[in-house]
Amino acid sequence: MKNFSIIDTTLREGEQCIDVNFFSQDRKEIAQALDDIGIEFIEMVSPKVSPQSQKDLKMIANMGLNAKILTHVRCQKDDINLALDCGVQGINLFIGASEFLQKYSIHKTVDQIIDLTSDVLSYAKGQSPDIILRFSTEDSFRSNHKDLIRIYSAIEQLGVVDRFGLADTVGIATPNEVTDLVSLLREITDKDIEFHAHNDTGCSIANSYNAIMAGATHIDTSVFGLGERNGITSLAGLIARIYSIDREYVKKKYNLLKLHQVHKLVQEKMKIHVSFNHFIFGSVAFSHKAGLHTNAIIQNPETYEILKPEDFGLHRTISVANKMVGIHVIEQRTKELGLKMNHDNLVELVKKIKNISDVEILNDDKLNQIIRDFSQSLSISKN
Amino acid sequence: MKNFSIIDTTLREGEQCIDVNFFSQDRKEIAQALDDIGIEFIEMVSPKVSPQSQKDLKMIANMGLNAKILTHVRCQKDDINLALDCGVQGINLFIGASEFLQKYSIHKTVDQIIDLTSDVLSYAKGQSPDIILRFSTEDSFRSNHKDLIRIYSAIEQLGVVDRFGLADTVGIATPNEVTDLVSLLREITDKDIEFHAHNDTGCSIANSYNAIMAGATHIDTSVFGLGERNGITSLAGLIARIYSIDREYVKKKYNLLKLHQVHKLVQEKMKIHVSFNHFIFGSVAFSHKAGLHTNAIIQNPETYEILKPEDFGLHRTISVANKMVGIHVIEQRTKELGLKMNHDNLVELVKKIKNISDVEILNDDKLNQIIRDFSQSLSISKN
Repeated sequence: MKNFSIIDTTLREGEQCIDVNFFSQDRKEIAQALDDIGIEFIEMVSPKVSPQSQKDLKMIANMGLNAKILTHVRCQKDDINLALDCGVQGINLFIGASEFLQKYSIHKTVDQIIDLTSDVLSYAKGQSPDIILRFSTEDSFRSNHKDLIRIYSAIEQLGVVDRFGLADTVGIATPNEVTDLVSLLREITDKDIEFHAHNDTGCSIANSYNAIMAGATHIDTSVFGLGERNGITSLAGLIARIYSIDREYVKKKYNLLKLHQVHKLVQEKMKIHVSFNHFIFGSVAFSHKAGLHTNAIIQNPETYEILKPEDFGLHRTISVANKMVGIHVIEQRTKELGLKMNHDNLVELVKKIKNISDVEILNDDKLNQIIRDFSQSLSISKN
Repeated sequence: MKNFSIIDTTLREGEQCIDVNFFSQDRKEIAQALDDIGIEFIEMVSPKVSPQSQKDLKMIANMGLNAKILTHVRCQKDDINLALDCGVQGINLFIGASEFLQKYSIHKTVDQIIDLTSDVLSYAKGQSPDIILRFSTEDSFRSNHKDLIRIYSAIEQLGVVDRFGLADTVGIATPNEVTDLVSLLREITDKDIEFHAHNDTGCSIANSYNAIMAGATHIDTSVFGLGERNGITSLAGLIARIYSIDREYVKKKYNLLKLHQVHKLVQEKMKIHVSFNHFIFGSVAFSHKAGLHTNAIIQNPETYEILKPEDFGLHRTISVANKMVGIHVIEQRTKELGLKMNHDNLVELVKKIKNISDVEILNDDKLNQIIRDFSQSLSISKN
């Protein structure tokens, strides 16, 4: 696996989710929980957003976390001054580059974009030579490649930027397009490259992975993928992706047992239901149901699991109380209940369970009762 | 966009989700709703699963739907006879091919796999020459390529299979690996190719897209991506992916206005909460919050939307009652309330709203009240 760092933006992009409103204490706890995992960078909303956002940025920048604190601001000197006053370690500057954003949002030509960003970036570095400066276009994947080459080349020449960003702001990029555009930017600069992927068309994780393989050094994530519209690259999803490729790399880099805490925290703070099928922390992520699956899983979990639940402080669920159940797991359950049955009995018992589950939803207690009743009926008929 | 068909497997793979228990009436309604969209194939659980599953397969195969009804069965003659008795139009046969599954699940060598599947496939075609036969390996992406080449080449030679399948049963494949393996299978056969992707590492949609581009003709989906563990390619997610590439192709192929119905139906039947950030039908999918976004969206929705909500019978939400609000949307809201303010007033009003939302969660009613109160305070101070 190629080396990369995570910029978690739950406290910036995440706050742009319509159902999320973090207050001061929430932000503090979430930042601490991200730091506990070993996340390298935490991005927060611009201090321009509101007075409390400004205070919280200062507070978190001064918590003494290992993670570097960044803020995401417009290409305006006022915004930069405010960010520097808060004591951040890095500033993430962005400007729209697609024709849509040039026309309807920033109202600037490519030449004007270059002039403005050059001026603002130089100003920022002049004010604070140690600040980590990032420059990113917005909507990079609907932007004209010629425009992007002109903009990034001009800013690269300026020599003040530490990291360049590409953003799939509308979630349109395909994996190959990400490979191509990151590779193109890699030709323009030797500096760090950050990639930010929205998930409108379901490719944010694949795209982030392809970005790393093409030379990106930093990937933006958020807890549960929170962000504008349906969000961005999920932190747990990216971890799952990289873990499946190089388990030891991820385990060395991050404290995976601490990953659960930030998910519990955000779930609690956002007060909405997280999906049952979210990566790693969804309720069904380590569940197994069909007979062929459960029969194999009890012999060797690697047959149907590429993520080990125990590496995340979780455990698997083997569903037995359903119509898809196989004979091996019923045999195991029977033994667990201290009962003995021969093969023919087990075949008959499985049939009985399937019949019942055709018309009612079983649970473990009901299943155990069915097994006990069946066992008793066997001993009665023997007697 | 390359042409392809959807095999929706909500009624097979979807039922393997631990939180899903569909009964007879549920299956009937879901099949009808999928047919209403124009989904080409509906895959159902094996009739071996339970007596009611067998009855329901027969019932749905005889509903006269446009969609072809398939069932997913093991390589066993008994299973095939039962499937044929139900009147299905196609049988999806599968067998484990990875070393894990060879060892812990099917207990067979590659030679034995070829012998068994050749025998069973020939038997099936002999019993019913018109049946659409699919042969797929399970866990194809952890299988040895040499093994796969031997198996698929042997079955291709047999000449009885209509469609070959590749399955990423454990959700490990990367987009490039999918491109490579589908391309390899394309070298072996001119027949249809089906691709089935689990989502453990978040790449199921990107992988399905890459599969189509590499020559796959059929993609497996389920509503909300329901399936074993955290599931497979989401139907809405795949539609979003393809729509963003070729809107007219998708609109001609499927009745997108009918897509909502099957999601409502499944959400109701499964009785668990679907994610707020699911593709298209999650509650936040068409929401906009940050000031820069909302300001641009009210001028032209394409600035930050690649999916048009109205194409799916939905509408967008522009969040105004929050600390990220920009001046343009507040100006618009003020006008909607029949109030007039100059620029300085608006700047002050936005400041006030941000201050309040720093400490409490606003909603539209509260926001309107703040605006009205502020307007009144202006006219009082003028008097």
